[in-house]
Amino acid sequence: MNVLGIDVGGTSTRAVLVAADGRCLGYGATGAGNPTSSGTETASAAIVAAASAALERAGLAATSADVRAVVVAIAGGTAPSSVSIAEALAATGVAGEVSFESDVLATYCSGSMAADGYVLIAGTGAVAGRIRDARLDALCDGVGWLLGDDGSGFWIGRRVVRSVAAALDGRGPATALTRMVLDALGIDDASERRHGGRLDSQRRLVEAVYRLRPVALSRFAQLAFAASADGDAPAQRIVDDAADALATTIAAVIDPEVAGPVVLGGSILAQQPAIAERVVAAVRAAGVIGDVSTVGDGTVGAAVLALRHAGAAVDPDVFDRIASSLAALR
Amino acid sequence: MNVLGIDVGGTSTRAVLVAADGRCLGYGATGAGNPTSSGTETASAAIVAAASAALERAGLAATSADVRAVVVAIAGGTAPSSVSIAEALAATGVAGEVSFESDVLATYCSGSMAADGYVLIAGTGAVAGRIRDARLDALCDGVGWLLGDDGSGFWIGRRVVRSVAAALDGRGPATALTRMVLDALGIDDASERRHGGRLDSQRRLVEAVYRLRPVALSRFAQLAFAASADGDAPAQRIVDDAADALATTIAAVIDPEVAGPVVLGGSILAQQPAIAERVVAAVRAAGVIGDVSTVGDGTVGAAVLALRHAGAAVDPDVFDRIASSLAALR
Repeated sequence: MNVLGIDVGGTSTRAVLVAADGRCLGYGATGAGNPTSSGTETASAAIVAAASAALERAGLAATSADVRAVVVAIAGGTAPSSVSIAEALAATGVAGEVSFESDVLATYCSGSMAADGYVLIAGTGAVAGRIRDARLDALCDGVGWLLGDDGSGFWIGRRVVRSVAAALDGRGPATALTRMVLDALGIDDASERRHGGRLDSQRRLVEAVYRLRPVALSRFAQLAFAASADGDAPAQRIVDDAADALATTIAAVIDPEVAGPVVLGGSILAQQPAIAERVVAAVRAAGVIGDVSTVGDGTVGAAVLALRHAGAAVDPDVFDRIASSLAALR
Repeated sequence: MNVLGIDVGGTSTRAVLVAADGRCLGYGATGAGNPTSSGTETASAAIVAAASAALERAGLAATSADVRAVVVAIAGGTAPSSVSIAEALAATGVAGEVSFESDVLATYCSGSMAADGYVLIAGTGAVAGRIRDARLDALCDGVGWLLGDDGSGFWIGRRVVRSVAAALDGRGPATALTRMVLDALGIDDASERRHGGRLDSQRRLVEAVYRLRPVALSRFAQLAFAASADGDAPAQRIVDDAADALATTIAAVIDPEVAGPVVLGGSILAQQPAIAERVVAAVRAAGVIGDVSTVGDGTVGAAVLALRHAGAAVDPDVFDRIASSLAALR
């Protein structure tokens, strides 16, 4: 008996075929699979392709892979296109009921087997969750770049380009970010030339930024970390504010009656331990925070949830086997 | 001898036909004419339609209207589509050289004839300008919703919806804005029902907001003013921060060597005298600020600039005649 765990993200989609004892038999990764941002067809194709790649890697045909359950971990825990995603998976010959779970729950389950606990994810977006009785009990933020995602990669990147625009016309303090952002956008104009009252470099910044999709601003977050490490005060302020925002987000889901571990996920928390430490320190005072672990994504958790859906017991040995054998496959 | 002044905006385009003595002979208004946000063809059509409406109102054919100069006041003072706009105007039979001027300069010239002075505009966007020798000497902000426009209608409206999203999941304080925004979006769900850890009303807020174009969030600015007037602290904070941001923007163009009046434009400053007063008070300390006036748009200024381009003298009598006869036509 095997199961498929599929973790769907805004930039990549990962599938893993797992045996009842936790051995990962095959793994596949494809592109963006979020139906909200990528559309149903693209998302469905990415999910199917990731599943197929995992089966192929395992050397198994879909019809003979003995798949008892499939869990698709996805933003919101459901998708308007859930039915078509399930149909597309069935069309490949994969058996087993397809269930949809929250990607936030899957990320938590990648880092902990405790029935109660907390999870904070900060990548391009940002969201916190409270887990109670192995279910998602409350969410905070995760409402996207326009409405929230406080402290996320987009949030930081947006602050970076805005601080550069402000520095160029004197609204804001000078910052090392200016040269870094202009360089990143290929704007080599260091002159003080103005046209119609506006600095040429600022005009070129405006043209370059509005050619990007808004969420693409998250790529500038790394410049804030680099400049902050070099002592640039405006960059340090952005990073500090991001840590405070993420602390506020996770604090909002802390319930004095729910004690458990904290699982941290997403590129910001994985790559910026200083932010992760500040966030955890801020919520320690609540007294219900246990172990802290950091995970890359929700793939292990999707596999755990799929095994549970198939009725298989997931004990610490099985959990460790999933994690270690998946790491070997990647 | 007559001239055409055309003020091009992101939501409407206004044209006025003016005689050498300042009498406005005809006026026409059409839709959005900004080529950057609306595209060259739409913009060009709106500009031509506004000009044609002004001529028709004056009872004159384009070929016999004796138009000596046309000034198109537009964001940036130029447009990638300047040539096609000029050609489209010429094709209607309008004679006279077509010149492009900054809409910021035109707004200033709607409120003052002084060669030196300052202008601050806060509508959907926000921008400040320093005028020296009747030319735009420096600009601050006006870099759009993603990069700046601090204190603008969009900036306030974005803060409004974000404060509601934060209040709904406990990241932010409760605010009267929540009910107001949900009502404005037709979300009548007052239950505390959650799905996948998320409050239903927040989920519906997310769906409704992402269906809007980002700049459409400016419509929620008025809710901040209403809630603030009713004593809602989070709304008051947004309005205060907007006033501070606008004060910072105009402060950045103040030059101790340039003394003159301040012209205020745009819906935020025209309709919120408390904000306008705070902004002016903040820059009074510089000691170079003279009279303060508030104008609706840049139409009068476009006419003034067109008369100057035609070589006509614009004295205080001519200026007053433009303003009063235009008001009578509108």
